[in-house]
Amino acid sequence: MIKEEGPRDSPCGPNQTFWISEVGGLTQFGAFVEVLPPGSRSSIKHWHSSEDEMVFVLEGLVTLIEGDRELVLRPGDAATFKAGDAVGHCLENRGETATKCLVVGTRASIDRITYPDHDRVCHRDRSLPDDIWTDSRGNPAASPYQV
Amino acid sequence: MIKEEGPRDSPCGPNQTFWISEVGGLTQFGAFVEVLPPGSRSSIKHWHSSEDEMVFVLEGLVTLIEGDRELVLRPGDAATFKAGDAVGHCLENRGETATKCLVVGTRASIDRITYPDHDRVCHRDRSLPDDIWTDSRGNPAASPYQV
Repeated sequence: MIKEEGPRDSPCGPNQTFWISEVGGLTQFGAFVEVLPPGSRSSIKHWHSSEDEMVFVLEGLVTLIEGDRELVLRPGDAATFKAGDAVGHCLENRGETATKCLVVGTRASIDRITYPDHDRVCHRDRSLPDDIWTDSRGNPAASPYQV
Repeated sequence: MIKEEGPRDSPCGPNQTFWISEVGGLTQFGAFVEVLPPGSRSSIKHWHSSEDEMVFVLEGLVTLIEGDRELVLRPGDAATFKAGDAVGHCLENRGETATKCLVVGTRASIDRITYPDHDRVCHRDRSLPDDIWTDSRGNPAASPYQV
């Protein structure tokens, strides 16, 4: 596995990603183990237009935030996020020890990631070097990860 | 998760599959926890033309058989099988307690699964109800799972 540290200044707090898919040259889905220290989130609440996602808890208690709902996932629990289901989700570690999850997501060539609580949309074309960010009306806007 | 018992008369021995992807309505990849009792195999040695695969060990020692190589995987270890890599692989439980793995595989609309030790090819078109089995020359042949 290839270890990657999350950005230091993320509004979600620090995290570590241990890539599995990259090591084996997989291109059709991404797979990694994500470690969240206490207080960190996996991402800002979002949903994907075109990519199925799944999370499987390996260690610790992980709070799944999905729309207005919250649910504590335990080791052995899984959650799925079907492409196009317009409900924002993210994971948060509200415990006192690090959590560890296996995360899998399809790699679609074109995807649109909506951040419903931030009025932001990320337009992703994997053939281009960078994502394009807009607000929900399509006006250019900053990424919500820029703090 | 939805529990499914493997066929009673499989040459690979009994197994249980706990489906994750089906519960959440995912269609782009399949994801499940597979339990292998001592002596069971996950499948007959095979490789996919069009579907990336990944396995992550949750419990027990799992022997990965890949071509002529064997390797023991421990909890936390992962293995990937890139679509088109023409090396047959399967997992075997040679221990004395059940093993548990998380398995993920893309769902390609068309796939060809080659069983190099059995001179068999499975032609899969997900728009059709059944797979078609041939030998490596394309002649109709029985599935190697029929014993």
